Amino acid sequence: MVKILLINGPNLNLLGQREPEKYGSVTLREIEEKLSCFIGARNAELLCYQSNHEGAIVDRIQQAQVEGVDAIIINPGAYTHTSIAIRDAFLGVQIPFVEVHLSNIFQRESFRHHSYLSDIAKGCFIGLGAKGYFLAAEYLLNPAI
Amino acid sequence: MVKILLINGPNLNLLGQREPEKYGSVTLREIEEKLSCFIGARNAELLCYQSNHEGAIVDRIQQAQVEGVDAIIINPGAYTHTSIAIRDAFLGVQIPFVEVHLSNIFQRESFRHHSYLSDIAKGCFIGLGAKGYFLAAEYLLNPAI
Amino acid sequence: MVKILLINGPNLNLLGQREPEKYGSVTLREIEEKLSCFIGARNAELLCYQSNHEGAIVDRIQQAQVEGVDAIIINPGAYTHTSIAIRDAFLGVQIPFVEVHLSNIFQRESFRHHSYLSDIAKGCFIGLGAKGYFLAAEYLLNPAI
Amino acid sequence: MVKILLINGPNLNLLGQREPEKYGSVTLREIEEKLSCFIGARNAELLCYQSNHEGAIVDRIQQAQVEGVDAIIINPGAYTHTSIAIRDAFLGVQIPFVEVHLSNIFQRESFRHHSYLSDIAKGCFIGLGAKGYFLAAEYLLNPAI
Amino acid sequence: MVKILLINGPNLNLLGQREPEKYGSVTLREIEEKLSCFIGARNAELLCYQSNHEGAIVDRIQQAQVEGVDAIIINPGAYTHTSIAIRDAFLGVQIPFVEVHLSNIFQRESFRHHSYLSDIAKGCFIGLGAKGYFLAAEYLLNPAI
Amino acid sequence: MVKILLINGPNLNLLGQREPEKYGSVTLREIEEKLSCFIGARNAELLCYQSNHEGAIVDRIQQAQVEGVDAIIINPGAYTHTSIAIRDAFLGVQIPFVEVHLSNIFQRESFRHHSYLSDIAKGCFIGLGAKGYFLAAEYLLNPAI
Amino acid sequence: MVKILLINGPNLNLLGQREPEKYGSVTLREIEEKLSCFIGARNAELLCYQSNHEGAIVDRIQQAQVEGVDAIIINPGAYTHTSIAIRDAFLGVQIPFVEVHLSNIFQRESFRHHSYLSDIAKGCFIGLGAKGYFLAAEYLLNPAI
Amino acid sequence: MVKILLINGPNLNLLGQREPEKYGSVTLREIEEKLSCFIGARNAELLCYQSNHEGAIVDRIQQAQVEGVDAIIINPGAYTHTSIAIRDAFLGVQIPFVEVHLSNIFQRESFRHHSYLSDIAKGCFIGLGAKGYFLAAEYLLNPAI
Amino acid sequence: MVKILLINGPNLNLLGQREPEKYGSVTLREIEEKLSCFIGARNAELLCYQSNHEGAIVDRIQQAQVEGVDAIIINPGAYTHTSIAIRDAFLGVQIPFVEVHLSNIFQRESFRHHSYLSDIAKGCFIGLGAKGYFLAAEYLLNPAI
Amino acid sequence: MVKILLINGPNLNLLGQREPEKYGSVTLREIEEKLSCFIGARNAELLCYQSNHEGAIVDRIQQAQVEGVDAIIINPGAYTHTSIAIRDAFLGVQIPFVEVHLSNIFQRESFRHHSYLSDIAKGCFIGLGAKGYFLAAEYLLNPAI
Amino acid sequence: MVKILLINGPNLNLLGQREPEKYGSVTLREIEEKLSCFIGARNAELLCYQSNHEGAIVDRIQQAQVEGVDAIIINPGAYTHTSIAIRDAFLGVQIPFVEVHLSNIFQRESFRHHSYLSDIAKGCFIGLGAKGYFLAAEYLLNPAI
Amino acid sequence: MVKILLINGPNLNLLGQREPEKYGSVTLREIEEKLSCFIGARNAELLCYQSNHEGAIVDRIQQAQVEGVDAIIINPGAYTHTSIAIRDAFLGVQIPFVEVHLSNIFQRESFRHHSYLSDIAKGCFIGLGAKGYFLAAEYLLNPAI
Repeated sequence: MVKILLINGPNLNLLGQREPEKYGSVTLREIEEKLSCFIGARNAELLCYQSNHEGAIVDRIQQAQVEGVDAIIINPGAYTHTSIAIRDAFLGVQIPFVEVHLSNIFQRESFRHHSYLSDIAKGCFIGLGAKGYFLAAEYLLNPAI
Repeated sequence: MVKILLINGPNLNLLGQREPEKYGSVTLREIEEKLSCFIGARNAELLCYQSNHEGAIVDRIQQAQVEGVDAIIINPGAYTHTSIAIRDAFLGVQIPFVEVHLSNIFQRESFRHHSYLSDIAKGCFIGLGAKGYFLAAEYLLNPAI
Repeated sequence: MVKILLINGPNLNLLGQREPEKYGSVTLREIEEKLSCFIGARNAELLCYQSNHEGAIVDRIQQAQVEGVDAIIINPGAYTHTSIAIRDAFLGVQIPFVEVHLSNIFQRESFRHHSYLSDIAKGCFIGLGAKGYFLAAEYLLNPAI
Repeated sequence: MVKILLINGPNLNLLGQREPEKYGSVTLREIEEKLSCFIGARNAELLCYQSNHEGAIVDRIQQAQVEGVDAIIINPGAYTHTSIAIRDAFLGVQIPFVEVHLSNIFQRESFRHHSYLSDIAKGCFIGLGAKGYFLAAEYLLNPAI
Repeated sequence: MVKILLINGPNLNLLGQREPEKYGSVTLREIEEKLSCFIGARNAELLCYQSNHEGAIVDRIQQAQVEGVDAIIINPGAYTHTSIAIRDAFLGVQIPFVEVHLSNIFQRESFRHHSYLSDIAKGCFIGLGAKGYFLAAEYLLNPAI
Repeated sequence: MVKILLINGPNLNLLGQREPEKYGSVTLREIEEKLSCFIGARNAELLCYQSNHEGAIVDRIQQAQVEGVDAIIINPGAYTHTSIAIRDAFLGVQIPFVEVHLSNIFQRESFRHHSYLSDIAKGCFIGLGAKGYFLAAEYLLNPAI
Repeated sequence: MVKILLINGPNLNLLGQREPEKYGSVTLREIEEKLSCFIGARNAELLCYQSNHEGAIVDRIQQAQVEGVDAIIINPGAYTHTSIAIRDAFLGVQIPFVEVHLSNIFQRESFRHHSYLSDIAKGCFIGLGAKGYFLAAEYLLNPAI
Repeated sequence: MVKILLINGPNLNLLGQREPEKYGSVTLREIEEKLSCFIGARNAELLCYQSNHEGAIVDRIQQAQVEGVDAIIINPGAYTHTSIAIRDAFLGVQIPFVEVHLSNIFQRESFRHHSYLSDIAKGCFIGLGAKGYFLAAEYLLNPAI
Repeated sequence: MVKILLINGPNLNLLGQREPEKYGSVTLREIEEKLSCFIGARNAELLCYQSNHEGAIVDRIQQAQVEGVDAIIINPGAYTHTSIAIRDAFLGVQIPFVEVHLSNIFQRESFRHHSYLSDIAKGCFIGLGAKGYFLAAEYLLNPAI
Repeated sequence: MVKILLINGPNLNLLGQREPEKYGSVTLREIEEKLSCFIGARNAELLCYQSNHEGAIVDRIQQAQVEGVDAIIINPGAYTHTSIAIRDAFLGVQIPFVEVHLSNIFQRESFRHHSYLSDIAKGCFIGLGAKGYFLAAEYLLNPAI
Repeated sequence: MVKILLINGPNLNLLGQREPEKYGSVTLREIEEKLSCFIGARNAELLCYQSNHEGAIVDRIQQAQVEGVDAIIINPGAYTHTSIAIRDAFLGVQIPFVEVHLSNIFQRESFRHHSYLSDIAKGCFIGLGAKGYFLAAEYLLNPAI
Repeated sequence: MVKILLINGPNLNLLGQREPEKYGSVTLREIEEKLSCFIGARNAELLCYQSNHEGAIVDRIQQAQVEGVDAIIINPGAYTHTSIAIRDAFLGVQIPFVEVHLSNIFQRESFRHHSYLSDIAKGCFIGLGAKGYFLAAEYLLNPAI
């Protein structure tokens, strides 16, 4: 059975209360639950992880290889723009991944316009709110048209 | 009935023959047909347009307003990186749109890393091949999770 | 009789409906008509042209030389910032011209702060709304104080 | 009665002798007199001021508020490119103003291409010689077409 | 029989009248005719095209593939510095091409020092006047020493 | 009772031994104790936290919201210049905070001249040694003059 | 008796009327009076000076040395970002000084993010409104914790 | 007895499996063991540490001071390019250290060309594979020729 | 009789007390007196001026033209790096001038490496202490070898 | 008889063995011989020179003036990008020259994209392999079409 | 027998007298002798060369290929930062080499932070004093751990 | 007896024939002779050297130390802007030197505005023609006023 890991980076545990005009009012817990259903209904399995610690996310990506994870959906939050360590973890484990951003990072501060992950990702979903996670899952499970 | 306009920019009419290692071997005609079915099955309508001319794309976006188009899916091709005129057309007609790139533009020449459209788009789908158009349509027709 | 050509670039045909808080609610047609009267009353003639196509504007400038146009008033819209071809057309025909911008381009995105035309124009009128066209005409017809 | 203040910055008192190929041969005194007539004929009043001192120009702008000046025409000369203090004076008094440059600053040294005032001005008149002051006055007294 | 396409970009139809100190006084028509003879005398065929429209040049390059053109000589004019769409057309059709500039672009404005085509061209001929087209043809027909 | 949280970032636990010519010889423990007295004497409460871990500081800021902290005094140390995650934590919890630097960061390496926090802080205290914490507390408890 | 000089730069005489949402509604006169009391109560003396003239501020700093001033509190206003002359005056007289900004300069235009004084100041107080002057005085009179 | 601490940063625990064409196939465990022998044979002691957490590495460097470590060999991995906190830890404890990179960082992405540690290191060993650790140890134990 | 004007900019009145390690211990008064003798001995006349005010220096340069000054020796101090107004005054009066700096500006802060005057000066004397004024005078009075 | 000097810069003596995929397998000796024949057949004379020494190339260019050389063909190799001395030699002797590069320098490292010679050359031949020398000779001997 | 060539660039013949605080007091002659012994003791041969001439170093690298040199140790001195010709010589001969710097170039002027050789070297030894040559030799002779 | 060495860099042997409008018509030989007289008359000795070779200039500076040269006057020509090796030679021998440029380098190409020598020179003489050498000698022999 296909195993997908969802990783959410720093402050995404605040979803629903943090700047709702940018991120919406649904909580991370709700998203994880709905996404589990969505993926389960397609005969695949979802693992969920959130951390505010760059090193912990690196650890989690490494562990994914041990667990046989097939693909990763990551919203790296602020680490998108500052973490080469997470980039290197992906280069190390060679698990395909997609990058998701809830808000349109190109409408925000200029330091959010650059990602250390995009060029090694399979693809990017930007500015689509929580829907982005579901479209990412749909893409990973069924990339053909 | 919801009306969606698909615009493909310069050289996307070559899809299937142009750099297939970057863009795949399916033709634009095939994509347009499958996407019409996909959208038709959701009780919406798809209009298709492709041009190599910046000005013609501006004209088409303006005409969309007259036709009552509800949303636009655009893959602006090379004009992504050079056309402020297309940006202004979107600012002028105020029709919501999403931006799609078949290839991962962040893996390519640095002048392809900047888009004149992204910050005014509803969202971006990057590097997902032809599947990106379908996910874009899914998002526009049903943005909620 | 002095012959003046007015060229409006991309999306200026939307005047009156496009971002009225930036550009006002008067239409391009109305401006052209009033400006024709204004110039006619000074025993000169106005030719009007608008296009969303960079190449068409280049064509029109070249044709102006054939027609014996004495001076050009141009609002190049988005092509202000991206078109070297229009610059070269002016360098080629050597017809004096002035550059007009309805909005204050220095209040907008930083990519609008640079013009490929200003340094070869006779002068620039920026941020004066539709009045800019009339002051430009006044200047071309009577440059002395 | 509408009261307009004309401010000329450093070295503009040399008009007529300084680099005449750039600035023409008419003196500042002559311009001020003709402009007074022009404005007087439109039932408004012109106050004139010139200084080589940045601080004195700041003082004069502040005093304008006390005097009930309705609008300011400023040719800031070299302070265009170096004075944030003059910018702050305008932000402080909130009197609408337009910026005039006799020569085409975009044809000159690159450090003259940036203005600390343009983005807070109502509009700019660039490269029109002394005529620029008159067109500026015309605009301030009658901004509609 | 080897088929070569000559493409001249915007404003090159003005050759002979536009800035003759930079481009010489021979017309484009004369160049095309002489080059046809030159190439014909080598048992190859020349097709000629000029346009001021970026999109039309993209179209023409695409059409060249259909026609079985073996090589392209392009003087992209101003689009050298601004058109990624033309670059993409060459990437799409994979027809070998050389880039020709009549004037020495390195003696001109700094924005003319960069080309979007040079790195994908077979080679470049710069600053050689109309002779550049003939040397380019000589090279394409007989690249060995 | 007003509750203030003091956060010290990486290596500030070395205070008193680390580069004393830059940071003085008083220890962090001593500062925390004196500041507790200072704040306690003003009928408010001080919570103290220090960590070398970016993620732990993010966690602590989030927890502050749960605890009903009214304001935060933060000396982010090296994370000042590299952490967007801490910035996002502040944006998420919306607790007002001030930024304190013991040394004058503008006298040091150029990469210390930029802060990811300053523009969203209530204010900054820079180069005042340990006194900066006390002045920050004074400001938060009594911002009026 | 300790003698402190307070210098306020250009447009700070407008305090209370200039952009009150940024600077508050208290006037400079009121601040100077309250600060005199505050400092007098600590057995020190306050001298006050405001000018819109860069040169006059340089003169005043030089004169402070003659008068035996012990420390200077300066809010250099716009000259923060443009005056090397004021920097040199401080380097010349070697009187310790602190820099105060009422508003948070990091929230404003990017040209306000750099100061020509900060790296030679004892410390900086930024974004604290008029309270900043009092905290600065407190620091100068009693720098220890 | 001389005590040397070896610190390996993020993802170096993957050595032997991560991008072997860049880093070789020997594991970190094997390197640590061989290096312990190498150093032991020279009457010195090796302590080994690896972490994916920036903060944990800062903690470890601070602890080294308590333990009386004489010198540190660090391969900071991705934190080379992003961590000022680790730099500050070294500045704080003042233990001499050398910097080792297995791969030639100058052959890789441009963001890997800058190190926040090099200018405060005793020296750097770059691109020598695992041998770099041994040469670093040789240097620390016997710096003279 | 040849008339030379010596202008010293801001803070040069502090010569002898300001940063003597950079500028020496001789006062400006002494330099002016010795230079007057030096020039008088060569049958020319020296006028001396010092000001901390940019505007006053502009005024003085303009006045020099009225007085028939033949050449100017200027040490613009801090205004070297910030004043376009002084540059414009020189462009306006067209009096030849040389630029003198006592200290070696290339050994100091990077913002002192650029001069707004050097490219329009006859020549520059940098880092020669007070001797620079005498060599400048020697040059102006006798430029041939 | 027309005298042409061929100068090849550093490492071009390795032609045929150095990076043959970039430069081809023909040796410099062979090129020089064939080019001598080519030029001799056109009643002109070829002088050949190669050196790895920047200074020697400067010497050779100066000597060319003494010898009455009419034109120079130079492939400056690496000195293209680093030698202002060679530029100055050309400016000094005023002998017309063309610049030849065997490989397409725009496909290589970015530091090879700039030439210190191009803007003072008559023209440039880039990426044409050894054929470039022959086309350059053809151009110099017969620049008309 | 393995043959190693040691190349020292400009001013390294001054070793022992030039800036001893940066480079130590041992002479180049002494280093060469000790290194010969060191390498001889490992059954390999050392050739030594020093020159202040860029071209001579290029010549020497080319000659190394003829001599059958197996590897090169180079301390390029100042040419590290300015010589593309030496880079090209290495690319041409394809002899593996390592780069050695006695001082820590990252502690010095910013123009010393970039090397034209590092990315094509096998590895780099920086800041280790004369010991660097010996570690480099050790590495070349025995790269395995 | 004081011994002064005059070094002239590349192409200065062309003085009198090279771009006379920039450098004058006097030859280097004449300058050297007159300067020898000038210096001889002051009981000092002049040694003269010119070379087009960077390495030879480095050699000459090193040799100066052996010869007991007291000071050097250098006009480094093009090597001003490209040679770190010459800089290092000066750092190595520690002989005081002054830098002379005949033309005003700030009026020329932007790459001539930076010198690798100025910040370590005693002083600079720029734009004074051949007179600069004599003033430099005067300064070295008698630096006091």
